Amino acid sequence: MLSIPRLSLADAKILIDGATRRAEEINVAMCIAIVDESGNLIAFDRMDGGKITSITIATDKAFTAAAARKATHEYNQACQPGSLAFGIHTALSGRLCVVGGGYPVIVDGNVVGGIGISSGTPQQDMDVACAAIDHFLTRQAAA
Amino acid sequence: MLSIPRLSLADAKILIDGATRRAEEINVAMCIAIVDESGNLIAFDRMDGGKITSITIATDKAFTAAAARKATHEYNQACQPGSLAFGIHTALSGRLCVVGGGYPVIVDGNVVGGIGISSGTPQQDMDVACAAIDHFLTRQAAA
Amino acid sequence: MLSIPRLSLADAKILIDGATRRAEEINVAMCIAIVDESGNLIAFDRMDGGKITSITIATDKAFTAAAARKATHEYNQACQPGSLAFGIHTALSGRLCVVGGGYPVIVDGNVVGGIGISSGTPQQDMDVACAAIDHFLTRQAAA
Amino acid sequence: MLSIPRLSLADAKILIDGATRRAEEINVAMCIAIVDESGNLIAFDRMDGGKITSITIATDKAFTAAAARKATHEYNQACQPGSLAFGIHTALSGRLCVVGGGYPVIVDGNVVGGIGISSGTPQQDMDVACAAIDHFLTRQAAA
Repeated sequence: MLSIPRLSLADAKILIDGATRRAEEINVAMCIAIVDESGNLIAFDRMDGGKITSITIATDKAFTAAAARKATHEYNQACQPGSLAFGIHTALSGRLCVVGGGYPVIVDGNVVGGIGISSGTPQQDMDVACAAIDHFLTRQAAA
Repeated sequence: MLSIPRLSLADAKILIDGATRRAEEINVAMCIAIVDESGNLIAFDRMDGGKITSITIATDKAFTAAAARKATHEYNQACQPGSLAFGIHTALSGRLCVVGGGYPVIVDGNVVGGIGISSGTPQQDMDVACAAIDHFLTRQAAA
Repeated sequence: MLSIPRLSLADAKILIDGATRRAEEINVAMCIAIVDESGNLIAFDRMDGGKITSITIATDKAFTAAAARKATHEYNQACQPGSLAFGIHTALSGRLCVVGGGYPVIVDGNVVGGIGISSGTPQQDMDVACAAIDHFLTRQAAA
Repeated sequence: MLSIPRLSLADAKILIDGATRRAEEINVAMCIAIVDESGNLIAFDRMDGGKITSITIATDKAFTAAAARKATHEYNQACQPGSLAFGIHTALSGRLCVVGGGYPVIVDGNVVGGIGISSGTPQQDMDVACAAIDHFLTRQAAA
C-alpha cells in the first residue's frame, strides 16, 4: 500500500487566492484551475471576464503539470520540431497541454497537485501561476 | 482465411519483465504497455511512481507501433515540419503517437504485437523498450 | 494537506492473481483491470481469449467503482428507468459503467483502488471480482 | 505465441456479395461492414441510397459482434432494463452497438470476423446479415 500526499480543498483555495491577487495586480481576468496529484480537479475560478476557451485550457495545463510532474512550458521546449518528444502536444486527444502556464505544486519533494492559469499571454499565465505557488509555499512554511 | 501470429499473455509478461528490469537499472518508474498485432491491449503495468499521462501515452505508443508496424521514433522523423507526413501525429484524435518509445515486436518477420514505454525521456523510454524486446527475443531463441 | 492510501503495483498484482485463479476455475478468459483510488490504471491483464470490447469495459468498471466508490451493479440498480439516477450510465461519454463486475477495493474503511472484470456474464464478472478481493484481503490480513 | 484465424479480404468480399444479393431481393439499399476478429474494418460497401448514419452503425455492429463474439440482437436482449448488463449499450462511447444486425462470423468454432448491416429495420438488417453468412459458409463448405 502506498501513502500519497495531496492538496486539500483548503490548500487549493490558498493557491487560488494567490493567483487572483496577482491577476488583479496585472489586471488580467484569469481562469484558475487547481488539480490533485492525479490530475483531477479540486477547485476552479473563472474571474469575471476570463475567457471561455481558458476554462478547458487552464484545467488541461493543471492536469498536465500534475499528472506528468512537469511545467507545461518545459514540455513546450522539449517537444519542438526536431525533438523526439515532438508530437506529444497532441497526446490524450490534445488534453496534454504544452502551453506555458501549468506548474506542478511540490511540497517536500512530492508533487501534491498542479495549477493551471489561462486567459493572458503565456508569460502572464506563468507569472500568475508562479505567484500563486509562492503565496502557497510561504503560507506552508509559516504553518 | 488468414492465419495471424500474435503474442500470448505469457509472451506479454516476458516483455513486461524485461522492461521492468531495465527501468529499475536506470531508476525510472515506467508505464509499460503490451498490445497485440491489431493494437489491442494485452497487458499493462504502471510501476509505482509512473506518470498518469503515461498510462495513455505508453498504450498509444504500443498501439501505433503494432498497428502501423513502425517504431514511433521513426514516425517522429518522418513527420517533421516540411515533410509530407507532417500532421500524422494528430491522426486518430492524437492516438497515433510519434514520440519515441513505441516498437513493434517482430518474430520470424511478422509483427506479432507492440510495446510502448512512457514516463522517462524519449531516449530512456526507447532504451527500456529495446531492452524488453531483447529480453523477449533471447527467451524466444532459447525456447 | 491530505494523505491518501493507494494500492501499489504489488497489491494490484495480488488482485490480478486472485482474479485469474477464479477465472480459470470457472473457465472464462477474462479482462482484468486494477485502478488506483483516483481511477487511473495500475495494471491490466487480458487472458488469452478475453474479449476486445472488454479491455475498455473492464477498465471503465474499475474506474467507476474506484472513482465513485460504488460497485457497478449497485449503480445498475440505482439507475433503472423510473429512477432519478436513470441516465447516469451515459455520463462521462459512457465511461461511467453500470454493468456488474466493478468493485471498489476497501482497506481500513478507505477506497484504495478498484477492480473491473469483463468477458463473462455480469454474474461471472462479479464472481471473479469478489474472489480477487477476497484473495487480496486475506493476504492483507496475513501480512 | 498464438495463431489466430482471420477473414481475408477475399472472404470479406464473399460476405458482401451475399449481403448485397439479399438486400437487392428485399429492395433495401444497405450499408455493409465486414471486420476482422479484432473488430477492425476489412471491407465496406454503401449501396446507392444507403443511409449516412448507417455507415457508422453498420461498422459498430460488425465491431461489436466480432470483438465481443456475440450477435448484437443478443446484447439487445441481455441489456434490457432490470438486467445486470443494462447500460452496456453506452459503453465504448456508444460504439458497442446493441441494435440487431451485427453477427460474428464463425468458422470451425472460431470467431474469424464480424458483419454489420444497417439501413433497414433491425429485422431486415438481421435478415441480410444471416443471408450473407449462409452464402459465405456455403462457399466455405464447397471449397
